[in-house]
Amino acid sequence: MPNREITRLTLYGDSISGNCMKPKWTADLLGIAYDWVEVDILQGGTRTEDFLSVNPAGQVPLARWPDGRALPQSNSIMLYLAEDAGSELVPADSFKKAQMMSWLFWEQYSHETAIAVRRFQKHYLKTPEDQIDPQLMARGRRALGVMELQLTYTDWLVGDAMTLADIALVAYTRVAHEGGFDLSEFPSVERWVSRTEAALNIPHAKEAA
Amino acid sequence: MPNREITRLTLYGDSISGNCMKPKWTADLLGIAYDWVEVDILQGGTRTEDFLSVNPAGQVPLARWPDGRALPQSNSIMLYLAEDAGSELVPADSFKKAQMMSWLFWEQYSHETAIAVRRFQKHYLKTPEDQIDPQLMARGRRALGVMELQLTYTDWLVGDAMTLADIALVAYTRVAHEGGFDLSEFPSVERWVSRTEAALNIPHAKEAA
Repeated sequence: MPNREITRLTLYGDSISGNCMKPKWTADLLGIAYDWVEVDILQGGTRTEDFLSVNPAGQVPLARWPDGRALPQSNSIMLYLAEDAGSELVPADSFKKAQMMSWLFWEQYSHETAIAVRRFQKHYLKTPEDQIDPQLMARGRRALGVMELQLTYTDWLVGDAMTLADIALVAYTRVAHEGGFDLSEFPSVERWVSRTEAALNIPHAKEAA
Repeated sequence: MPNREITRLTLYGDSISGNCMKPKWTADLLGIAYDWVEVDILQGGTRTEDFLSVNPAGQVPLARWPDGRALPQSNSIMLYLAEDAGSELVPADSFKKAQMMSWLFWEQYSHETAIAVRRFQKHYLKTPEDQIDPQLMARGRRALGVMELQLTYTDWLVGDAMTLADIALVAYTRVAHEGGFDLSEFPSVERWVSRTEAALNIPHAKEAA
């Protein structure tokens, strides 16, 4: 599948993965045309020889262009698409941009690794609560607390407009309840989720199918 | 300590942390003057009220400037210093820069979380081998394999010169043996470690005290 001929930007991803939604939402928002190729992680779609030949790291999302270029990593793909389009999703001010980058790295290190992992175990692998590492809940709640602290003061994570930081962080925060997290404890985060979903024109996760 | 008056760029970090060395090496290479403030993670230095008032996420490294600006996240600080200096450590070509960004995100998600974590447990916490999650060795070896695949073909991770990707990845790869990893299984990685240490003018980790 990954080796089929492609004629425009192609995004490979698994629709249940928040990481895979980030570049998709960004492309949608920027009006960038693309083909979506569904890769089922649970069914081993990222471990096939075909897929590994394109991305040896065996991870989705992956962006590919007709000239053969390929780019992995959700946040990197978003950043490339947005900068290439000259979008205001990347702040023009260099320090604000640096703050956005800090949120993007923090998301992959401190947020995704707790909230997305717990959601995957609880919601998709159906791991019983007592067999889930209790650290995941503690670390996830700490991450949500860090966001709450910022979002109590500002509507968006950086500056006064939505940036890639909001898109990256909303991906798993909006489905945190599937990981057993109670967002009502973090009211500023909860309002920011609705605000960001509206800006991205995506359904509220709690009401979605 | 973090709240003392500062008169120039100040980097807060723990010298045993590869993450903290990244912005330090970058500043050294770029000839940027800074003060270094040692924060001992094992002694709770990142959990004091003073430190949390500057970085609520409670993580080092942290960069602060005299005008009050503060920036967390190792890769974000490196990137800001290098871009601000117009350094070639960030490729001018937009796609090469995107590839560098992909390595930076991959480092924090797939490399640091296995290799640095196993090193911390084995070398600093002195956790017995049989009490270390066996996944850490498997994931760390997979990460080193991904790097080996690239470095078999190229001297540097992106393009034909050292970039921030090399600085970020060498930080924990050069001390991977302290985590029980055997770099002689990854000969291209091993040569790249020496090459990068030489370019950064830092000692070879195996020979260092």
